[in-house]
Amino acid sequence: EEQSQATQGDPYSGDPPRHPALQVNSLKPFNAEPPAELLTENYLTPNQLFFKRNHLPVPAVDAASYRLQVEGPGGRVLALSLPELKRRFPKHEVTVTLQCAGNRRSEMSRVRQVKGLEWGVAAISTARWGGVRLRDVLAHAGYREEEGEAGEQHVCFEGLDKDLSGVAYGASIPYRTAMGRGADVLLAYEMNGEELPRDHGYPLRVVVPGVVGARNVKWLGRVSVSPEESPSHWQQNDYKGFSPAVDWDTVDFTTAPAIQELPVQSAITDPAPGATVPPGELTVKGYAWSGGGRGVVRVDVSLDGGRTWRVAELTGEEQQPGRAWAWRLWQLTAPVPPGATELDIVCKAVDASYNVQPDTVEPIWNLRGVLSNAWHRVTVTLAED
Amino acid sequence: EEQSQATQGDPYSGDPPRHPALQVNSLKPFNAEPPAELLTENYLTPNQLFFKRNHLPVPAVDAASYRLQVEGPGGRVLALSLPELKRRFPKHEVTVTLQCAGNRRSEMSRVRQVKGLEWGVAAISTARWGGVRLRDVLAHAGYREEEGEAGEQHVCFEGLDKDLSGVAYGASIPYRTAMGRGADVLLAYEMNGEELPRDHGYPLRVVVPGVVGARNVKWLGRVSVSPEESPSHWQQNDYKGFSPAVDWDTVDFTTAPAIQELPVQSAITDPAPGATVPPGELTVKGYAWSGGGRGVVRVDVSLDGGRTWRVAELTGEEQQPGRAWAWRLWQLTAPVPPGATELDIVCKAVDASYNVQPDTVEPIWNLRGVLSNAWHRVTVTLAED
Ligand SMILES: [Mo]
Ligand SMILES: [Mo]
Repeated sequence: EEQSQATQGDPYSGDPPRHPALQVNSLKPFNAEPPAELLTENYLTPNQLFFKRNHLPVPAVDAASYRLQVEGPGGRVLALSLPELKRRFPKHEVTVTLQCAGNRRSEMSRVRQVKGLEWGVAAISTARWGGVRLRDVLAHAGYREEEGEAGEQHVCFEGLDKDLSGVAYGASIPYRTAMGRGADVLLAYEMNGEELPRDHGYPLRVVVPGVVGARNVKWLGRVSVSPEESPSHWQQNDYKGFSPAVDWDTVDFTTAPAIQELPVQSAITDPAPGATVPPGELTVKGYAWSGGGRGVVRVDVSLDGGRTWRVAELTGEEQQPGRAWAWRLWQLTAPVPPGATELDIVCKAVDASYNVQPDTVEPIWNLRGVLSNAWHRVTVTLAED
Repeated sequence: EEQSQATQGDPYSGDPPRHPALQVNSLKPFNAEPPAELLTENYLTPNQLFFKRNHLPVPAVDAASYRLQVEGPGGRVLALSLPELKRRFPKHEVTVTLQCAGNRRSEMSRVRQVKGLEWGVAAISTARWGGVRLRDVLAHAGYREEEGEAGEQHVCFEGLDKDLSGVAYGASIPYRTAMGRGADVLLAYEMNGEELPRDHGYPLRVVVPGVVGARNVKWLGRVSVSPEESPSHWQQNDYKGFSPAVDWDTVDFTTAPAIQELPVQSAITDPAPGATVPPGELTVKGYAWSGGGRGVVRVDVSLDGGRTWRVAELTGEEQQPGRAWAWRLWQLTAPVPPGATELDIVCKAVDASYNVQPDTVEPIWNLRGVLSNAWHRVTVTLAED
């Protein structure tokens, strides 16, 4: 089990066991989401049900010999053990929602097939993360807050997960995201009060609040600062948004910025699509979230396809303005329109910059199926009285 | 002319002369926008054509006796003359787009009548502002960057423009917007290299990059820091967004946050609605901008009502990531579909957080007609060959 993967026939044979309730989109690498109706039962997603998005086999990391490499200014490399990290830097806890760039991709594929895992609405989850602040570690290595001002700088991360040719997963975030005052970027070793599970990056991962999942590098091996973004495939040639006019023959990945902060998002988790619901009163539930620390200020719900709207009740924790890193859950209980046989339920959220979700999927369709944040629609049938 | 307004019959009789090309939405107070096709002729809007949004008569301020009052911690008030401001603090210049919350309101009124000035697409303009940094002035008064962390704090502004009962225009912004590292909030005394014009706040105004026009208080009289937002009518009971379900009988202004950062926006400025255009090739022009320093990453243009899209060319200055305070202009030259007799031209922009504009106006309709940022549509007729 702690054996090197390269010596085994199947590089995924060392992957950990998973919860049977997860809906699997890909086994190797492992990618899975919880059932939507379970997702919003808890404000903090239980670790076992937190969506899993792996790009490569889960590395077997020996915590005792583990060293985080941190490259300082001038190229000097620090090697920090886990006990050193925990001892040297104050522990910091933040509740953060992570969302995969491909969350709700299956709705895009219904418009026109896209390339990617067919995520439903649950490639998003929330946890209380515990660890050390990246800015404290970078300051210890010799970086100061102002450093990033001399030209745009980036903080690059390398994972310990590697493909068969030895290339590691990698990503980067802007220096200001890491080092700004109030920056809550963590090198996390705890998830909801437990040791980080193997699927979520044991023993140490990056958690970048407000930023797409793909930059939250797991099994963190190395941190460095660079005038260039990470050279990784996933930073350069993936996880970018394009016009619906762009296809695989015409795409030029240098023309679009790597996704960092995500746009405002919401979805209905209950009732399920195609469910039969009793007449009288209906309760609709879901989640809403936005990137960049922008809180959710309102969720509108329609039972008639978007013709009329009601304002949902927001639940879950309120967060600090500008640092609203976690989702709000919401619900609406409303009378079912008399005589209806079917309901077209729709939700749309508004964030603290008053950004809204687009009405339809087609105009935001993109070849990679990312950034799928149109109004979410669920059609249900009414049970006869 | 420099006489106190209260002694005159018409409080607006002291208002300055205006450029005849401006399209007037209200004379008293004066509110006007430039013709859309002039708006995008220049990256920096000429001062004479910059949209004007006054809430009250233009005050006659004597620059020699003018003092800015700055309330420090503990209530001590500094009184700073213009020469003192210019001498004590470094001059800082920033190119900033200002947009009225009501820009494009007339499109909302076409769905259902709203309360407010019937702005077209040109209640938005860009200038190079020169002045002192608000953070430098607040630091001089005794505030430190960290102060805002002890509970949410606000920086309140009071104008010298007053209604007949003596109540001044006022607004506030979050402390972190004013004091964060890299905060570019100015107390400006210059506009495009000229002395601030009377209609734009002579002798000193606030410029809050990335934030709705209404917080950019003109004819600035007083600055203070408070645990509460400005008690002003315009902060508390106006300039907020609501669900389309909310009307004047049900609205509760305490339930929505005061608008600060604005959502992503774009509009077509050329051709004009209803224009007749030659067959062959068409050039479409416009602007795009987003709040919060989020740059514009793409503008999609459709000549067929949103069925197919092309990517427009962005022009104007590129800006620093996270501090993209000014608009991009854009244009697209494309062949007119053969056989067409009418074109339904549409534009939509994408910002650096990949937020997009909503498809239609109706679902974002709100009783005050603010935040009108749906796709912009212009219908033109094709001249016969
Ligand atoms: Mo992802
Ligand atoms: Mo405004």
